[in-house]
Amino acid sequence: MSQPIDIAVIGATGTVGETLVQILDECDFPVGTLHLLASNESAGSGVMFRSKSLRVREVDSFDFSKVKLAFFAAGPAVTRSFAPRAQAAGCAVIDLSGGLPAEQAPAVVPEANPAVLDNLKAPLQLSSPSAAAIALAVTLAPLKGLLELERINVTACLAVSAQGREAVNELARQTAELLNARPLEPRFFDRQMAFNLLAQVGASDAEGHGVLERRLVSELREVLGLPSLKISVSCVQVPVFFGDSYSVSVQSRTPVDLAAVNAALEAADSIELVEEGDYPTPVGDAVGQDVVYVGRVRGGIDEAEQLNLWLTTDNVRKGAALNAVQLAQLLIKGLV
Amino acid sequence: MSQPIDIAVIGATGTVGETLVQILDECDFPVGTLHLLASNESAGSGVMFRSKSLRVREVDSFDFSKVKLAFFAAGPAVTRSFAPRAQAAGCAVIDLSGGLPAEQAPAVVPEANPAVLDNLKAPLQLSSPSAAAIALAVTLAPLKGLLELERINVTACLAVSAQGREAVNELARQTAELLNARPLEPRFFDRQMAFNLLAQVGASDAEGHGVLERRLVSELREVLGLPSLKISVSCVQVPVFFGDSYSVSVQSRTPVDLAAVNAALEAADSIELVEEGDYPTPVGDAVGQDVVYVGRVRGGIDEAEQLNLWLTTDNVRKGAALNAVQLAQLLIKGLV
Repeated sequence: MSQPIDIAVIGATGTVGETLVQILDECDFPVGTLHLLASNESAGSGVMFRSKSLRVREVDSFDFSKVKLAFFAAGPAVTRSFAPRAQAAGCAVIDLSGGLPAEQAPAVVPEANPAVLDNLKAPLQLSSPSAAAIALAVTLAPLKGLLELERINVTACLAVSAQGREAVNELARQTAELLNARPLEPRFFDRQMAFNLLAQVGASDAEGHGVLERRLVSELREVLGLPSLKISVSCVQVPVFFGDSYSVSVQSRTPVDLAAVNAALEAADSIELVEEGDYPTPVGDAVGQDVVYVGRVRGGIDEAEQLNLWLTTDNVRKGAALNAVQLAQLLIKGLV
Repeated sequence: MSQPIDIAVIGATGTVGETLVQILDECDFPVGTLHLLASNESAGSGVMFRSKSLRVREVDSFDFSKVKLAFFAAGPAVTRSFAPRAQAAGCAVIDLSGGLPAEQAPAVVPEANPAVLDNLKAPLQLSSPSAAAIALAVTLAPLKGLLELERINVTACLAVSAQGREAVNELARQTAELLNARPLEPRFFDRQMAFNLLAQVGASDAEGHGVLERRLVSELREVLGLPSLKISVSCVQVPVFFGDSYSVSVQSRTPVDLAAVNAALEAADSIELVEEGDYPTPVGDAVGQDVVYVGRVRGGIDEAEQLNLWLTTDNVRKGAALNAVQLAQLLIKGLV
């Protein structure tokens, strides 16, 4: 086992931060001292790690020279405030918030572009991309040699947990009120989320594209190494607690060999290919798992150049926390 | 007002049939005698129509020479069994089940291809297409002159009511069981539908395409008069009771003029264009309404030839019953 390294997790009380600490606990990652940090409101609570209760401290007063690696699992504003401080203290940064520009912190998915790490200069800064980019990159990376990728169309059906614990509670509360025929008073969402679909997730820009949609396009191009890949994406908030799903239609410039596609997906370690005729669901398959589930692998109707797929993955685990830990596992050789 | 005509509704006790009778009741359609028909199990119940209770009779023993027009709103097998009998009796047929081949009963959406009716020969037979084809045809017909349509990508997020009343009850029952932490026992669906997405709706063929997916492709090509239009479609069953939604990405051969697209959608009678920055939802907007709601009208990211849209519509009303009644309104000039 490698020499233990001291680590900070910023945003340790959020859904992603909590899962990240769990994964560090479960796997044989060589953790020395673990510092759990959060904003003022969440500081003070205790979190279990390797049979000890660790106190969550305020990030404001943290001395980053105490650690060699910091995971930023709070919002992008928190990353932008504190990552420079971590960097100045010589601490490597893995950002899960999308708060750092690509030129400063390249987006990496270990299954797709691990070679980026070979050319990184200290102090190391990496972005662990959005759940959507991770799911798509994990799935498309093993197909890059088989398809001449021209265009990818994605409808991302996002679970409410991506918006944090409050969103999860709100979906449960709204559902209970509706089932009990009580008047619905939306709080977290601006309208009814239960038994409904919201066609916009988060803020959008003047051209109508969501921040998440733009983020997916730039991250996926970067991680796949295809800067001019055409991508259309629509994010939809669905009444599902955990587990994101993606309806994906890929255009290749040449006919798609479905048998070869199935074989490549079957061979990929981070993919669970669901047998023909069946399909994976977020609740029944993805939640709590470390892989991307892929199903409904099929061609186009009257079109040999098309490939259609259905993906589902645990947005908090494989779509966020686990990818960050995998990045850390690749990084630690340079840190210890 | 036109001379009243005698009408039969087959499948009068189903979700679509019931709504069809409601719409005939509400609008000034010149109904003479209305015969409500159903299979053995549902026959005998009473349905209100224009302040009278009408008894639902068995379709098996019905004499189609009593009526001039029959709506087939039961399953495709029922249509295939009884439409020939209706036709032999000189009765016009409007099929809502997808049970008749296109060469026998052309698919018509009044907003898209009403001219088909000009060349029809008696006995008239028409198909009122699937909810998905209706929503897309209504939306794309006014854009045909503005876009050089090359490809349409659709993820259809379908409400459970498309599968009938049992499916609606099952979603409610599953949700209540989960909220009360009772063990889930799926009955109508083969797995958990509450807080989950099912990536396949109904049967699929050897190539993995769903029957509904194939139906959408052929109907949309037919109704838009674009037999070689490239269409990719994935149907997903979502935990929504009523109201289908469609995430649509359109490729044009030429740059898309978004202002002209917005103006054309705004001008269309059967479309409610939701203002920029907002978006329609099935529950909040579409349910109970006679229009297709369109929102999130935006271009591509780095691509001038792309148009993205979000549609939502009442699958039972605008997506089925209302279209059939609109077809009848076009037909009756030839029937009386």
